[in-house]
Amino acid sequence: MVKTYVFGHKSPDSDSITSSLVMANLEKELGNEHAQAYRLGNLNKETEFILNYLGIDAPELLESVEDGADVILVDHNSPAESVENLENANILKVVDHHKLALNTSYPLSLRFEPVGCTETILCKLYEENNVGISKEIATLMLSAIVSDTLLLKSPTTTEDDEMAVEKLAKIAEIDVEEYGLEMLKAGTDLSSFSIDEILALDAKQIDFKDVKSIVNQINTASIPDVLEMKDDLEKGMNKIIEDENLDLFMLLITDIVNSNSQVIALGKHADLVEKAYGVNLEDNMVLLEDVVSRKKQVVPIMTESA
Amino acid sequence: MVKTYVFGHKSPDSDSITSSLVMANLEKELGNEHAQAYRLGNLNKETEFILNYLGIDAPELLESVEDGADVILVDHNSPAESVENLENANILKVVDHHKLALNTSYPLSLRFEPVGCTETILCKLYEENNVGISKEIATLMLSAIVSDTLLLKSPTTTEDDEMAVEKLAKIAEIDVEEYGLEMLKAGTDLSSFSIDEILALDAKQIDFKDVKSIVNQINTASIPDVLEMKDDLEKGMNKIIEDENLDLFMLLITDIVNSNSQVIALGKHADLVEKAYGVNLEDNMVLLEDVVSRKKQVVPIMTESA
Repeated sequence: MVKTYVFGHKSPDSDSITSSLVMANLEKELGNEHAQAYRLGNLNKETEFILNYLGIDAPELLESVEDGADVILVDHNSPAESVENLENANILKVVDHHKLALNTSYPLSLRFEPVGCTETILCKLYEENNVGISKEIATLMLSAIVSDTLLLKSPTTTEDDEMAVEKLAKIAEIDVEEYGLEMLKAGTDLSSFSIDEILALDAKQIDFKDVKSIVNQINTASIPDVLEMKDDLEKGMNKIIEDENLDLFMLLITDIVNSNSQVIALGKHADLVEKAYGVNLEDNMVLLEDVVSRKKQVVPIMTESA
Repeated sequence: MVKTYVFGHKSPDSDSITSSLVMANLEKELGNEHAQAYRLGNLNKETEFILNYLGIDAPELLESVEDGADVILVDHNSPAESVENLENANILKVVDHHKLALNTSYPLSLRFEPVGCTETILCKLYEENNVGISKEIATLMLSAIVSDTLLLKSPTTTEDDEMAVEKLAKIAEIDVEEYGLEMLKAGTDLSSFSIDEILALDAKQIDFKDVKSIVNQINTASIPDVLEMKDDLEKGMNKIIEDENLDLFMLLITDIVNSNSQVIALGKHADLVEKAYGVNLEDNMVLLEDVVSRKKQVVPIMTESA
């Protein structure tokens, strides 16, 4: 039996986990019975909420793949965010909505669309292949779209995402607003995490030109609640800056109800935040109104100002 | 008016030219009225035959694009094979069947499948988007598939290519064998080309690990006819080797009727051909039985042996 490993990125979010389950199911429906979903890290609280709601198990943890292994990547394509030994695997397919950061020495199947969520693309793939979407699959898809687009309010949201949610809500028989807010709030529960874990939960290494940075995002329903940990967060951030020789650690504390982000910026290039947004940091902090998307509202603006 | 430039690779073959026309038409049908097909070089004789058969004009020649231009790439994705100033363009979409050699700083639409021809993918895109395929579009698609797969006989041929040809032949009302052979033979007419032009017609720069190489392919219905030019071809090849500081120039003279390739190999690493195929060059030549595909039967084998 030649297995096909299906997985999303490291530090998995709900899109990465649900997409691996939904893509593995599509592969099976299309005759690849050896497709199996995996995860490259621990579940976050939001994803736990989704899987608990459906009463299904998390995919198995995958640390590396053997030489020549057949793999399918979802919700990522950068080798830096992928499994160990990807360079010696055989990538069959990639379904993703991120920028393109992969090179190969062989042709493969790629389906990328600049939409809010991988599941929006998978929803189309089910339709194009005439594969029925069950209530469970619809719930997985819908949950990830709600997560990635913050209930269709993030500027990453496209018409395709909206259409997918409308369609999937009917199949899943779910009140999107009610379920979605409950799900997003579940994701804001940080009570079981240490400071180090919080700072690793959704951390991305992004270099703004020469400014070596980490941008981390924490969703919350109450910014003041998170700021109770401010001193400890800053201590942890400073330690990571020192250990990894960073120029900037930018922590976005995103209010999912009011769609703002409180930013804590540390490091010798913390001033890049001030320059990029025309603001002044006070006590290492600034509130960025209407900023909720790292991909659309942070990375391009910070890169341009660097 | 913001134009969308649609084009295939440099040194265009029939797939690159027809795909740009077919993709621009699909874009228009889907509401992007500013999509326009372009070509990045002169037509070959085979493509001339196709456009003459249909009585349609060649796309306009494109040398470079302006900063920020909207572009759609078909039948290629490597910047090295693309238009000047691609790095400052805004790539909206790529439809291709080659290995992945592009990175971007932004999300985009990608549709890659490991099939024999870009037109096979475009045929699916028309269907998925419920856009009707006219007789002219069908003929363009079918011609390119016949060209890239040498009448469905090349090992690059997939089931999807076969299915597309079957379907398109009905719409185009064409006898595929008869039309296809006439078209392929038209492509073998080298009478109007100088030696330098012949050596540039379908030349690809490919480095087999450290071995800096050019692999050129000439289709013919008669290998002896082409070998009448052997002395002049070798002179031209040696000049290019010297000018571009190459380690190897490999010329495949491919018999499209009998599915063999006569290889002429020159350069200080011509022995790589001997090692890769377990053969001996005589008078710089060897006949490789059943070898017709540079992509499937040359690049991987030469790379592995380098």
